[in-house]
Amino acid sequence: MKLPYKTISDSLNRSRFSIILANPQNQENIGLVARAMKNTGFSELRLVGLQEFEQEAYRPAVHARDILKKAIFCQSLPEAVADLNLVLASTARQRKAFQVITIDQAVEKIRLFPSHIKVGLVFGNERTGLSDIELRQANFVYFIPQSSRQPSYNLAAAVLITLYTLFRQSAPELVAELPPPLPHKEQAGCLQIISAKLEKNGFIHDTNRQHVTNLLYDLFGRLTLSERDQRFLAAIFNKGLNSK
Amino acid sequence: MKLPYKTISDSLNRSRFSIILANPQNQENIGLVARAMKNTGFSELRLVGLQEFEQEAYRPAVHARDILKKAIFCQSLPEAVADLNLVLASTARQRKAFQVITIDQAVEKIRLFPSHIKVGLVFGNERTGLSDIELRQANFVYFIPQSSRQPSYNLAAAVLITLYTLFRQSAPELVAELPPPLPHKEQAGCLQIISAKLEKNGFIHDTNRQHVTNLLYDLFGRLTLSERDQRFLAAIFNKGLNSK
Repeated sequence: MKLPYKTISDSLNRSRFSIILANPQNQENIGLVARAMKNTGFSELRLVGLQEFEQEAYRPAVHARDILKKAIFCQSLPEAVADLNLVLASTARQRKAFQVITIDQAVEKIRLFPSHIKVGLVFGNERTGLSDIELRQANFVYFIPQSSRQPSYNLAAAVLITLYTLFRQSAPELVAELPPPLPHKEQAGCLQIISAKLEKNGFIHDTNRQHVTNLLYDLFGRLTLSERDQRFLAAIFNKGLNSK
Repeated sequence: MKLPYKTISDSLNRSRFSIILANPQNQENIGLVARAMKNTGFSELRLVGLQEFEQEAYRPAVHARDILKKAIFCQSLPEAVADLNLVLASTARQRKAFQVITIDQAVEKIRLFPSHIKVGLVFGNERTGLSDIELRQANFVYFIPQSSRQPSYNLAAAVLITLYTLFRQSAPELVAELPPPLPHKEQAGCLQIISAKLEKNGFIHDTNRQHVTNLLYDLFGRLTLSERDQRFLAAIFNKGLNSK
């Protein structure tokens, strides 16, 4: 029996995505889009409404010129989305004839379909956004939440937030690797060196011993001492605090 | 008895945040940062290493000039963070002497402290990032995950992603409001009009009736028809499909 569910893969398979800029007017924005694509691991850029890049597009595309070099110039938006299975368009405002969902719902939609279908993300002109006629080329129209009514996100910002949201969902394995805390006996050993020093110097004495020791354990516990921390603290308390 | 937990408020209280740019070299980036701040509801900008804004800062700061106008110019980073309780600094690379956490862990740290403490977010120079000496002014150092080693996010992009991540966590109420689906009897009524039309035209007949009806219910069920959809479909099937 075929079950009506699958295990959703962690990977969105970013190579099947096309970022489509419809009638961008600022070449610098195109370069910033290419850089945002590079940062987040997307590679295919399609352009409607222009024939070539000017120098201003290349300047902000640091380390992302390859994306510009293999960008695809299309005659029209219908041509640009013709081979794509799922098309999502970004808008900054309510649209009379089109239902609008949030970016998070849009990402969820993408994740529900098989991970091999081709997906297009369409962004409009900086000043006017996407026209109704352009929106007709999309399966879904989405917006990026913002705090104030004005201004809307600029073009490169809208692309960046969209791609970063997708990237983060497809790369949950990206976490910081903190240095491992020492085995607890060694963490405690470190503390004992410090206690001994403070005892010797008279800072810890009979009437405060219990409370100060609690405070020390609290402070050093929270530090989750690593081997490097241990070496550093041992050096301080063995040598660094000896009066000359 | 005082319990060691509290209910985390949905709001991050964005007015207590300062965005601090240390030695930015591109004035246009400052304008983009102001716009990103406006988009995400942050308002206090502090600058280290410059005395004033040039025209290029104002151009991209569409609808965000007020942020530039009340920006605070500081003599040094220690001065810029002096009154802040919790300082987080952004870095794009591993740092020898500093533990580095992810942006999501950084946001989590902020949420754990009382919502009235003052928070600073520090971003470095476009080319060099923050120096070790600058990092010393932070409680925590964080990075924004990226797909490729090069390039790093540009300055305005790093600020935007940081603020958007904070904004999204502090504004979970921001969801699209879809038009309510009709009471089910009316959704079904809409479908019956269409079935009747298809029966009349001979498209539905005795041998396919059951299967075609299933398909229709599936298709129209998924549309979660709203009142507007109903009016539109009724108009199509009552008038729009009559042969003249």
